[in-house]
Amino acid sequence: MTKQELIQQIKIKQSFLCVGLDPDLSKFPPHILELEDPIFEFNKAIIDATKDLCVAYKPNTAFYEAYGVKGWEALEKTINYIPKDCFIIADAKRGDIGNTSKSYAKAFFETLKADAITVAPYMGSDSVLPFYEFKDKWVVLLALTSNQGAADFQMLPIGNKKLYAEVVEKATQWGTSENTMFVVGATQTSEIAELRSLAQDYFFLVPGVGAQGGSLKEVFDFGANADCGLLVNSSRAIIYAQKDENFALAAKKEALKMQTEMALYLQRLVD
Amino acid sequence: MTKQELIQQIKIKQSFLCVGLDPDLSKFPPHILELEDPIFEFNKAIIDATKDLCVAYKPNTAFYEAYGVKGWEALEKTINYIPKDCFIIADAKRGDIGNTSKSYAKAFFETLKADAITVAPYMGSDSVLPFYEFKDKWVVLLALTSNQGAADFQMLPIGNKKLYAEVVEKATQWGTSENTMFVVGATQTSEIAELRSLAQDYFFLVPGVGAQGGSLKEVFDFGANADCGLLVNSSRAIIYAQKDENFALAAKKEALKMQTEMALYLQRLVD
Repeated sequence: MTKQELIQQIKIKQSFLCVGLDPDLSKFPPHILELEDPIFEFNKAIIDATKDLCVAYKPNTAFYEAYGVKGWEALEKTINYIPKDCFIIADAKRGDIGNTSKSYAKAFFETLKADAITVAPYMGSDSVLPFYEFKDKWVVLLALTSNQGAADFQMLPIGNKKLYAEVVEKATQWGTSENTMFVVGATQTSEIAELRSLAQDYFFLVPGVGAQGGSLKEVFDFGANADCGLLVNSSRAIIYAQKDENFALAAKKEALKMQTEMALYLQRLVD
Repeated sequence: MTKQELIQQIKIKQSFLCVGLDPDLSKFPPHILELEDPIFEFNKAIIDATKDLCVAYKPNTAFYEAYGVKGWEALEKTINYIPKDCFIIADAKRGDIGNTSKSYAKAFFETLKADAITVAPYMGSDSVLPFYEFKDKWVVLLALTSNQGAADFQMLPIGNKKLYAEVVEKATQWGTSENTMFVVGATQTSEIAELRSLAQDYFFLVPGVGAQGGSLKEVFDFGANADCGLLVNSSRAIIYAQKDENFALAAKKEALKMQTEMALYLQRLVD
């Protein structure tokens, strides 16, 4: 999916919601566990319930790999099931030497047919560049994550800026806003504003709203650009809203709540 | 496998060789491609030919994921086939928020039964700590990699030291030399010596010997500790030594060449 197509979907659906598909059998409603492929059946119900309210889905590969071959099969089926008008981010946080990153790119862009993959920057340019060889595919580079450990390295000072800003500055030389997004955690608004000034036209994938304490309004106030430029992710708050036969309806209600708030903020861009 | 067991294997086999199992169908001998599971059959032949000459195997997960579900199945079969006296490193370069890292740990330690997993440090402590909850399992943390891009972030100055040294210093507070190794590229000997002084009892996993320009003798001179403390990896130089029916024999010859040189250096530790 191209940047223009993504922006158009945000306008049509009045939403910049990304739903995280992180399957965990221990959190599934009991009746789902009796089906032949519980992970896919769960995701299918969540997708059916939320596809008109979100513009992106983000399966985190860890939760599929934990179930081995069966998990990997469920991931393939899930990605194939997601409607074509939704942006698909494989949240894999990969990154390796050139030759190996190319294999990951093949795995996620060709075999799995995701639009984007999250990439960890630690190994530098040649670990990221191979992902750019695939047309209309995206790198979503970790810049400032929303977890506590972000302070350990991302926040360290490099001269008069911090490591996360150095990552964003370097990466804007490797790719463009047509094939690169940054992960920017919702928890620190001043950093969101700082990164927006460094990467004005770029999309940010924002985790950490809700459960981890970030506010949707503040993320929009400090992080939006003229195209919106945000994908705000929510995983557990939506997909595990209720652990019974009505789980998909409960997920839809939570997604609708977020989409309604998002529509309100998006109106500002039109004015 | 415990640290003591690994040290014992190094003494018994007079080797600190780790063989990288990075399957690439385009580099396989043609007759292998006709078999039902070419990746597993290739690995099986390589393992049979090299298991007495190396102490560890390191499948890089990218090369399996590139083949989707079939690749993942071949990875499971390969890990099950590796003899119990060999240390198994899943070279996955994972790392995510706590909850998610725990899923990766489950995937690689329980489902796949690897001894160790490579982890990228960018997300900090809570992305690494969940891997320590599994007894006799190991974190192999990226410190200084052997690729060109290492200069982009790993080499940046944080006060009077560099980021890779900061990673090693912090990580020695998270784990111990009984459950933590560091990836230290073979290409810069002065940095190997510096990191050895920061993490004296720790094992280093060393890529970059041979193809990437590092010298085995220099790695040993600057990096060995009293227990050896090194696993030197070789992938392509061994497994793709020859592209015909004698590929396994050619792999064995290359592994023997490295093991013979290693035995020579290991004698110094005994004296």
